Amino acid sequence: MDNKKARKFEAVRWVMVFVIGVTVGLVGLFVDFFVHLFTKIKFSVVGDSIEKCTDKGCLSLSLLELLTFNMVFVFIASVLVLIEPVAAGSGIPEIKSYLNGVKIPGIVRLRTFLCKATGVLFSVAGGLFVGKEGPMIHSGAIVGAGLPQFQSITFKKIKFDFPFFRSDRDKRDFVSAGAAAGVAAAFGAPIGGTLFSLEEGSSFWNQALTWKVLFCSMSATFTLNFFRSGINFNKWGSFQLPGLLNFGEFKCADGDKKCHLWTAVDLGFFVLMGVVGGLLGALFNCMNKCLSRYRMRHIHPKARFFRVLESLLVAMVTTMVIFSASVLLGECRDLSSPTTHNSTLSGSEDINSTIRQFFCSNKTYNDMATLFFNPQQAAIHQLFHQDGTFSPVTLSIFFVLYFLLACWTYGVSVPSGLFVPSLLCGAAFGRLVANILKVKLGLQIYSGTFALIGAAAFLGGVVRMTISLTVILIESTNEITYGLPIMITLMVAKWTGDFFNKGIYDIHIQLKGVPLLEWETEVEMDKLTASDIMEPNLTYVYPHTRVQSLVSILRTTVYHAFPVVTENRQNERDFMKGNILISNNIRFKKSNIVSRAAEQRRRCQSMKSYPSSELRNVCDEQNAAVEPAEEERTCFSRCWREGTLPTQTCTQTSPPARSGPWRSDSDRSPSTASFCAPSWSTCSSGASATPRTSRAPLSPGCPSQK
Amino acid sequence: MDNKKARKFEAVRWVMVFVIGVTVGLVGLFVDFFVHLFTKIKFSVVGDSIEKCTDKGCLSLSLLELLTFNMVFVFIASVLVLIEPVAAGSGIPEIKSYLNGVKIPGIVRLRTFLCKATGVLFSVAGGLFVGKEGPMIHSGAIVGAGLPQFQSITFKKIKFDFPFFRSDRDKRDFVSAGAAAGVAAAFGAPIGGTLFSLEEGSSFWNQALTWKVLFCSMSATFTLNFFRSGINFNKWGSFQLPGLLNFGEFKCADGDKKCHLWTAVDLGFFVLMGVVGGLLGALFNCMNKCLSRYRMRHIHPKARFFRVLESLLVAMVTTMVIFSASVLLGECRDLSSPTTHNSTLSGSEDINSTIRQFFCSNKTYNDMATLFFNPQQAAIHQLFHQDGTFSPVTLSIFFVLYFLLACWTYGVSVPSGLFVPSLLCGAAFGRLVANILKVKLGLQIYSGTFALIGAAAFLGGVVRMTISLTVILIESTNEITYGLPIMITLMVAKWTGDFFNKGIYDIHIQLKGVPLLEWETEVEMDKLTASDIMEPNLTYVYPHTRVQSLVSILRTTVYHAFPVVTENRQNERDFMKGNILISNNIRFKKSNIVSRAAEQRRRCQSMKSYPSSELRNVCDEQNAAVEPAEEERTCFSRCWREGTLPTQTCTQTSPPARSGPWRSDSDRSPSTASFCAPSWSTCSSGASATPRTSRAPLSPGCPSQK
Repeated sequence: MDNKKARKFEAVRWVMVFVIGVTVGLVGLFVDFFVHLFTKIKFSVVGDSIEKCTDKGCLSLSLLELLTFNMVFVFIASVLVLIEPVAAGSGIPEIKSYLNGVKIPGIVRLRTFLCKATGVLFSVAGGLFVGKEGPMIHSGAIVGAGLPQFQSITFKKIKFDFPFFRSDRDKRDFVSAGAAAGVAAAFGAPIGGTLFSLEEGSSFWNQALTWKVLFCSMSATFTLNFFRSGINFNKWGSFQLPGLLNFGEFKCADGDKKCHLWTAVDLGFFVLMGVVGGLLGALFNCMNKCLSRYRMRHIHPKARFFRVLESLLVAMVTTMVIFSASVLLGECRDLSSPTTHNSTLSGSEDINSTIRQFFCSNKTYNDMATLFFNPQQAAIHQLFHQDGTFSPVTLSIFFVLYFLLACWTYGVSVPSGLFVPSLLCGAAFGRLVANILKVKLGLQIYSGTFALIGAAAFLGGVVRMTISLTVILIESTNEITYGLPIMITLMVAKWTGDFFNKGIYDIHIQLKGVPLLEWETEVEMDKLTASDIMEPNLTYVYPHTRVQSLVSILRTTVYHAFPVVTENRQNERDFMKGNILISNNIRFKKSNIVSRAAEQRRRCQSMKSYPSSELRNVCDEQNAAVEPAEEERTCFSRCWREGTLPTQTCTQTSPPARSGPWRSDSDRSPSTASFCAPSWSTCSSGASATPRTSRAPLSPGCPSQK
Repeated sequence: MDNKKARKFEAVRWVMVFVIGVTVGLVGLFVDFFVHLFTKIKFSVVGDSIEKCTDKGCLSLSLLELLTFNMVFVFIASVLVLIEPVAAGSGIPEIKSYLNGVKIPGIVRLRTFLCKATGVLFSVAGGLFVGKEGPMIHSGAIVGAGLPQFQSITFKKIKFDFPFFRSDRDKRDFVSAGAAAGVAAAFGAPIGGTLFSLEEGSSFWNQALTWKVLFCSMSATFTLNFFRSGINFNKWGSFQLPGLLNFGEFKCADGDKKCHLWTAVDLGFFVLMGVVGGLLGALFNCMNKCLSRYRMRHIHPKARFFRVLESLLVAMVTTMVIFSASVLLGECRDLSSPTTHNSTLSGSEDINSTIRQFFCSNKTYNDMATLFFNPQQAAIHQLFHQDGTFSPVTLSIFFVLYFLLACWTYGVSVPSGLFVPSLLCGAAFGRLVANILKVKLGLQIYSGTFALIGAAAFLGGVVRMTISLTVILIESTNEITYGLPIMITLMVAKWTGDFFNKGIYDIHIQLKGVPLLEWETEVEMDKLTASDIMEPNLTYVYPHTRVQSLVSILRTTVYHAFPVVTENRQNERDFMKGNILISNNIRFKKSNIVSRAAEQRRRCQSMKSYPSSELRNVCDEQNAAVEPAEEERTCFSRCWREGTLPTQTCTQTSPPARSGPWRSDSDRSPSTASFCAPSWSTCSSGASATPRTSRAPLSPGCPSQK
């Protein structure tokens, strides 16, 4: 490529990252606007009803109203996920996999994007204990992957003649930028977003890329900021509302000279809170892992309808808990004097405007309802900034209920983030500690800081992110002086949690059977050689194997992927001897790559009539040109780290393996024609629907076909 | 290395980075405390004298006092640099080189550290237009390099038995951490510091390292913060003064609803300011390059005494300019009403306390004196936060004078940073723009933001850093909303400047002849092959060459490095043919590495009696164990990028080449016994003291000896 062309490309890249940033910002705006609108309508209708019914005694009517709202919203979210199953969950595990080179079909497609962005809107508005931040990151990544392609697979009509940025590297770069923009838009944290991309995705520090990613993040943050400031304050052109999640301003009252946000002494408490946060996070992850396993075994294999039912069940229980806790368990507490620090919420609401007075006399208010009957962000604000208004009992009950429900909710098939629930849960814990220290021990502390540190500790214990999370939290508070306490807390929480299990995203990556290469491998792996993990008894097929044989192989084995070996040697025995096989296969592959890819595509097209949408996914991403050499390496390393799987024929990767044939568990019965979609998930150990006992003679990872 | 040992090492590493962070913080505290003290004494004595003399007419006496103070301080700083020449300048080019694998002897030694830290204190106190931030980064890097060694070459008595962390990689990791801590302490920007290390040094994103570097930076920032808050406010345990350089709080007056820090419209102006900043920066760099070249040719070859004289000359001229500008050119302006936003300076001074009333009647003050008769940081604060008090004429004159003097000063042999002068210069420019827009055009803008953007534009134009500088400035202002304008300005400034020349650090790296591998190579290099830059006529020596021959070779050539070739082939002609030579030499080297290193060390020890301290430097760093393979690679790539130099024998690297025999220009006459110290600087093109005409047949880069 000559010099001029390279420069032109570079310019187009800059424009692209800008456009991606702006688009992600607009997506954030869309989600935020409608969540805000729906939540406002819901709470005002139900709130009015409760106010009326407190006297009349028609509270069950109010509950019914709330139930109707929530169930309808959650039903919509759940149906959207039915349309595109990969839109479920937060999407961060999937994006992490993608950035590390493991592609999951459909994960960066327009349809997924539409389902995710719309779905999260409804699941948040539906009162589930989920956040919109994770899905924002996923949406951002999809925008990053999709925009530079100038075409869509979902909508065939969207197709411009712009055949650049089709290489794997370019795509991944744009996805990095998009994911970073997602973080930036969600938290108003452009630097944190950049570091998120680097921490999760990069192993090579590419200065030019980092600079572009930061630019993209900035564009997203400030696009969102621009429109939100315009819409909410009607001040177009000013920039006052940085991210979707904003922690408000931590600030001592102006006159108060004795007030400090934190002191050196507090650091000791922060470390202890980090330990507790790590333990709680580990517990959360452990429970969620068991739940997810249960779900995979007992719900996913059933009809899809059951997933919707589960979502509705969660919505119903959540609603009941919210309602009954507010009615039965809330304490009426005195309204504090107008707080001296006027922290402005997003949407120009004052901190006191989100206080709920349900069932309480004038001048007092219901503290449980204040936490439960508000959008989660408002509740976080309350915990961070409202001075001395929550009783320890309320906080404890709130924490336990929230912990359990959030744990149950994450994994239900709706688009759902984990950041905000974790923050809220942790903030309650932190506030509880602050209450105890302040009231019982009489220490001079700033409650908001403790709530923040509690939030950081719990979140850190759950997700186990390090640098990027530190920076995200610092940026969200817009207070650099919180750097040290947040970092120490996160560090301690991570170390404590790592003692017991992995972070929630890694757990879900593992459960889904994605072969992700960790930064640090297990200690035992250092001593393994290739021969230790090889499978001596290999089931393989020939290019011209008859369908009958295939079916019989599929019936008698539990695998979904088989190496295809050629017959151009006289002696099969020779053929199977290590190196010869490998080198031979590489030759075979190189000479056949074009014809095989075409063949594959043809076959997939003819399969569009097949009812399962997931099977179709497999074939969709095969249009991009592929570089055999890179593939082989990817595959090789992929199989390498999966200590559990044998990988004798790993060099035989072909387009289907690379574009990540990767299917949900419900579709895994061996009798389906899975030959076109040999599944990576056979490599994985966890949560497989296949019989556990037959795992010992697991077979090849990377399949090949002719 | 087994598992337990690895874990123990990891723990020691964490402790080490913490200790490094704390130490760097304490160094920052030391420098800051004494600069503050000396400056305060100086300005109060001279200020009092001026107040008295305004009536009596004894102003020349005041000038004399100021001159005495400044000249004495600068003399001390200059003498310290004489003791250790590499302590001159900001040290950032050297650290950048170090982090990229090119070692400069003495750059990370305790003596350098002492001279640098003490020297910068005096050069700043001496009223020179220099900053203490660059030297802080260098000091931090030295602490990072030195502490984990548990021994010192300068002071032989400091030696504990802790022979770990001796590998190149470990050392570089700790230096990264130390440099980051330096940035963190200087600007109160731990994230910026981490990114600085990554941007300047790393090509591989190592998650574990990054996390340690961030921890180190945080430790430094908060150690400094802790002690400064304790000393200045007597509030031990609170954290209120983040970094040495702090921009104060940008904030609209509380009641003012129309005031915005910046709006979308302002972005257009920021882009224009970025362009101008880039142009000014390019001009600054160009002038400084010419000056440095002149200095290298005409001052450095002379006796060392001349360097001190130059420093004193600069100090004298600077003092005269400060004084006469304040007396003659200042305008008397009305004192504004007490500003509504009480931005607190470091040291708890109010913004109005640094206003100077020299030669002005009551209720008015001298605007030029306010800028010139204060520490630079106070002047920056004035420009950022003082409302509407500087006349355009004053600002223009100040800018021009400051620009010229700062340009002259950078490169004088005192420890001197460039950040603060650039910021101040740029702030004056930005304030000028703000004045014009606000007063002449009547736009509703916030002057402080324009001053900040001006500062960013000029600094960006001079140093051309990208991500890290953006983050550093955001962190220094503690205002995330400035992210977008700062980034756009820096981007535009960098692109504009890059159109003309390189950044100032890269220029100085080039001038010093350090062979640094850039992120992006020149376009022409893409088309070069190895044979294009090879030298066919090679001057080489044999392991047993007689001294007489050596002397004659040294007399007849201009090189300081010669390949040593073996004689174990019958035919010399064969020997010189490309590949054969290389492969043969590698063999030769591998078999001899141990004995040669030992030999080298012995030789160097016997040379300690040699008067030149620089010659000794060469040998000091040879204690670390070396890995031949890595060396070869380093050398190879090193020579590769230097398009100007021929590198036929580049594979022949041995410890002396790797430990960076690299000497100041004054010591380069071919008659000295430079055989022990074959100089890398022959590779370089710029600023060499050797005759320019004989450059064509330049010879080998990487020498080897037996």
